[in-house]
Order: sequence, then C-alpha cells, then structure tokens
Amino acid sequence: MEFVIKDIGRVSNERKERIDDNWSEIESEIILNDDIPLHSLHGLSEFSHIEVFFYFHKVPDESSKRFEKIPRELKNLKPKGIFSQRAGGRPNKIGNTICKLISVEGRKIRVENLDAINDSPVIDIKPVYSVFLPKFTDVTEPDWVNEITKNYW
Amino acid sequence: MEFVIKDIGRVSNERKERIDDNWSEIESEIILNDDIPLHSLHGLSEFSHIEVFFYFHKVPDESSKRFEKIPRELKNLKPKGIFSQRAGGRPNKIGNTICKLISVEGRKIRVENLDAINDSPVIDIKPVYSVFLPKFTDVTEPDWVNEITKNYW
Repeated sequence: MEFVIKDIGRVSNERKERIDDNWSEIESEIILNDDIPLHSLHGLSEFSHIEVFFYFHKVPDESSKRFEKIPRELKNLKPKGIFSQRAGGRPNKIGNTICKLISVEGRKIRVENLDAINDSPVIDIKPVYSVFLPKFTDVTEPDWVNEITKNYW
Repeated sequence: MEFVIKDIGRVSNERKERIDDNWSEIESEIILNDDIPLHSLHGLSEFSHIEVFFYFHKVPDESSKRFEKIPRELKNLKPKGIFSQRAGGRPNKIGNTICKLISVEGRKIRVENLDAINDSPVIDIKPVYSVFLPKFTDVTEPDWVNEITKNYW
C-alpha cells in the first residue's frame, strides 16, 4: 500500500547540515504553510510539550533502503536493525521528536529540542498527552485532555 | 511537497471498529510484511518500549480536512485546532503510540497499549530512547543507546 503525505510547514533554524549532536543549542521555529488555516493551532499554547513530525529530506534514497546498520557507524558496535534505531535513514524517512513549546505566534511555533535541520518539511504536529508517555512526567496540559482520555487505557 | 510512504506491516488485534476507549484491554501483534527483511528487527527485543507508527486507514478523507474540531465531540468542550489534538482525523492521518514491548518472534511483534484497530497499516517502528522523553521514566534500553546519544542534547 502507498499513501501520499503533504507538508504542512517547515523548520527554520541555524543548523543547515546534518550533524547528529548538541541539538540543545538549537532553537527552532516551525512556520505553518499559508494553505493551512491558522485555527489549526488553536489551543496549542496550552501544552508544555508538542511532538513534531518531519521528513528527513536530506537522507538519500539508498540510505533508506538499508534495513540493518551500525548506529552512528561506531566501530565498537555491531549492526542493529533499522527498527531498533531512530536514525533518519529509514523506510519512509519520518522523524518525530517531543519538543518543549516556547511560544505560538501567528504561523510561527517556537520550540526547543527539535532535532530537524533547517528547511525540513513538517508533516504533523501533535500535543503531548501525559497518558501516552510510558510514565507520568512533568508534562502539563489543559484539563480537557484529562477529560477526553480518562477511559482511554 | 508530496511524499509517498509505504506500509511495512500491519496490526492484528481484536478491535475491528473505531472505538476510542479502553485500549488497555487490547493486546496487538504487528506482523511485518514479507518484503521487509527480518534483520530490520535485530536488537528490538532489548527495548522495553517501542513507538509504533500507523496509518488511520478508516478515517474518511473529509474528516482529515477539518482543521478545527471539538475533541471527542463532547458538548461541554469548545473546538480546538487539529494540531492541539491527537485525533485520527488529521492531515496525513499518521498515528503513533508508545507501546510496551512484550515479545519479538520472527515477523511478529507483540505489544501492549497500541491504539490502532485491526488491519491498520504500520508505517514505521522506532525504539523509545529515554533521552527523547520529556523526563527520564522507567524505560530500559541497551547500553549502546546511551553511548550514541550521550552528546545528543
């Protein structure tokens, strides 16, 4: 089966190349595409954390067809299956990261801890609901989330 | 921009219809497609939790074009933007859930807490790395994850 997905925005930050480390130095903006209505973000600022989905647009196709690889190509490691890693060179090239939400202003969403390089196509944004985390952490959320998830699990 | 994604497996469980609650009753199997090499799962069983990405294949296209809606259509709630919700009726129809990993046997991955109905196309599987969670929880993981992520943030 094949599915077509479309970008809803893009990442803007100072990291222009694929570098794997020190992402906490990077603050990013997600800029919503003009064809996505602004009310799609209504209520987002009530969350402490959001999950950002992006497309690893700089990963070559060949790299996404290798199903086993050595993580970070570190010589002391053995190969691991691609589904045992979060590397970008994977089938479908979908990245997702839980980010700290700093602000929502118009079409601009400012976040910390987004490990996507500049100009990465954003394909979805979701709020972090604490009930979806393995264990309750310091996430905050509006009351309506508790209400709609109270019988979820 | 448009991207084509392909299923890598499918969900098998007892929930045949879209029902929103009581997912903890459901145990699921993910069955890897025959065209995906088995070594893609190598090392997965060392993780306590995995993240499963699936396609909301039963969500009508119209529903994925509404950018604001009332969560669960509860009368006491006001509409929220789609990016402030995790509902399936969203652009690109991508679902993702952190699941407890029970077992990996051949092409079958058994999990708890997967909120995808039977036959949902699976589009990716990722291990949960504790450094990607908002705060350290009770996740366990092999040592090599600590190694490759030690400078990540």
